[in-house]
Amino acid sequence: MATITSDAFNRLSEAQLPLAYQLGFRAETISNGAATARMPFDETTLRPGGTISGPAMMGLADFTMYAALMGAIGPVEQAVTTNLNINFLRRPGQTDVIADCRVLKLGKRLAVLEVTLFSEGEDEPIAHVTGTYSIPPNNSDSERA
Amino acid sequence: MATITSDAFNRLSEAQLPLAYQLGFRAETISNGAATARMPFDETTLRPGGTISGPAMMGLADFTMYAALMGAIGPVEQAVTTNLNINFLRRPGQTDVIADCRVLKLGKRLAVLEVTLFSEGEDEPIAHVTGTYSIPPNNSDSERA
Amino acid sequence: MATITSDAFNRLSEAQLPLAYQLGFRAETISNGAATARMPFDETTLRPGGTISGPAMMGLADFTMYAALMGAIGPVEQAVTTNLNINFLRRPGQTDVIADCRVLKLGKRLAVLEVTLFSEGEDEPIAHVTGTYSIPPNNSDSERA
Amino acid sequence: MATITSDAFNRLSEAQLPLAYQLGFRAETISNGAATARMPFDETTLRPGGTISGPAMMGLADFTMYAALMGAIGPVEQAVTTNLNINFLRRPGQTDVIADCRVLKLGKRLAVLEVTLFSEGEDEPIAHVTGTYSIPPNNSDSERA
Repeated sequence: MATITSDAFNRLSEAQLPLAYQLGFRAETISNGAATARMPFDETTLRPGGTISGPAMMGLADFTMYAALMGAIGPVEQAVTTNLNINFLRRPGQTDVIADCRVLKLGKRLAVLEVTLFSEGEDEPIAHVTGTYSIPPNNSDSERA
Repeated sequence: MATITSDAFNRLSEAQLPLAYQLGFRAETISNGAATARMPFDETTLRPGGTISGPAMMGLADFTMYAALMGAIGPVEQAVTTNLNINFLRRPGQTDVIADCRVLKLGKRLAVLEVTLFSEGEDEPIAHVTGTYSIPPNNSDSERA
Repeated sequence: MATITSDAFNRLSEAQLPLAYQLGFRAETISNGAATARMPFDETTLRPGGTISGPAMMGLADFTMYAALMGAIGPVEQAVTTNLNINFLRRPGQTDVIADCRVLKLGKRLAVLEVTLFSEGEDEPIAHVTGTYSIPPNNSDSERA
Repeated sequence: MATITSDAFNRLSEAQLPLAYQLGFRAETISNGAATARMPFDETTLRPGGTISGPAMMGLADFTMYAALMGAIGPVEQAVTTNLNINFLRRPGQTDVIADCRVLKLGKRLAVLEVTLFSEGEDEPIAHVTGTYSIPPNNSDSERA
């Protein structure tokens, strides 16, 4: 079954997702239909109140979904987000953020994924995300590439 | 009525939203309950396929909502996003992205806003966003601060 | 171009959407990529506080999206909702609810639609909805059926 | 701690949520911040393709969130949904639908909840919902009432 390692995903990110890479996003684990990733704490991502900005968390969630999807179907770079919904739950701490993603449904054309975001070391989530990826029709070709 | 100019909002952004500022996000117009903003085209925000990454568009949408909310209630920095939902509609061109936001509902505790994103010079939107901001209870104090 | 009249859509609804039909949902206008529909005021749809229940409004929004989509691509009954997001904006009056829908994006596989709900006679919306429909691959066959 | 039993919630529903009650929605378990509920299979809720309509599933999800919220804060009838987002994952079977809800975050003003819907007897979810409820400011009064 086509899949991807976290190392390979991070190299792909370095080459092709410059914003995510510059913000330090890294996949830590990728399995078939699940992934975890980390955003290091950095003052660049703050917003008023000294808290981590929403867009940084959305970016990490999207990054982790992309990793989990590739964990399920291989390095299909042309898969694209069609919908993302985020609920912010608690004020993040001034620590790294950990994202934990699993695939809720993997279809031929669409995948739906769920991500929970945590401040490192805390049990209560800081945000919850659901998203949909559109899988290109020529996916089987991409998987062979 | 408390409000904010686009210049004042951009200065606030420079000081307090470093990621948005570095990506070149700038409010262009702010009125009572509406705002427009621009993200300059920059290779940092690309993703595979040579297209603008979803998180960059989410960030611009959130930035424009913050501007429109402050256009309605003044510089209430502690207002925070509680929910954001984005639908990606069309592949963006390799041009600046323009965001056009209006307040759908302004309550005492919650505001709901809508943002439409366009590739500059195009009529068809590339993404549509709705979001909710929570307005802090001490809003009247914040406005005086 | 394949499309559907509001009369034909309401007959389809009578035969195939029994819950919507029993609640009195009726399409009033359908054009290429837009539709309006009405939910008559009825005590069945109330919730505590004497206000119209959220699910009744979600149902009307979904019904109106189905009408607008068929206005754009013809009577493709097998099109199905894949995502729906609703923000409730204001307490509805004890009147009919009017839904106003337009297609934001019509692709080969997905359509994204926006619906605004109003209490009849009021200018300010009571709810705002975005939704995605998946269009079956054999759409051209369905249109001929 | 204020809470509610499933029997009391179903009596409240019978009196005040007539549409949900007529469709046979019943809470089965309610604990502090979690609830399960059932929608019996009924031809009224079908849509083209012989499958259960999206609005029926949205209604069940909203009903179960209301139950779980009351499980956490007691019978605060005036709590209202402000946002609901649903992803439809798989075609439901022609069986009862089971909804399983938990509170993701309980604040003073807002609660965020997650619901997973299943066809009875199946392991894979048919839909996933997140929603936000606004809790009225006079909540402590309501709880005493």
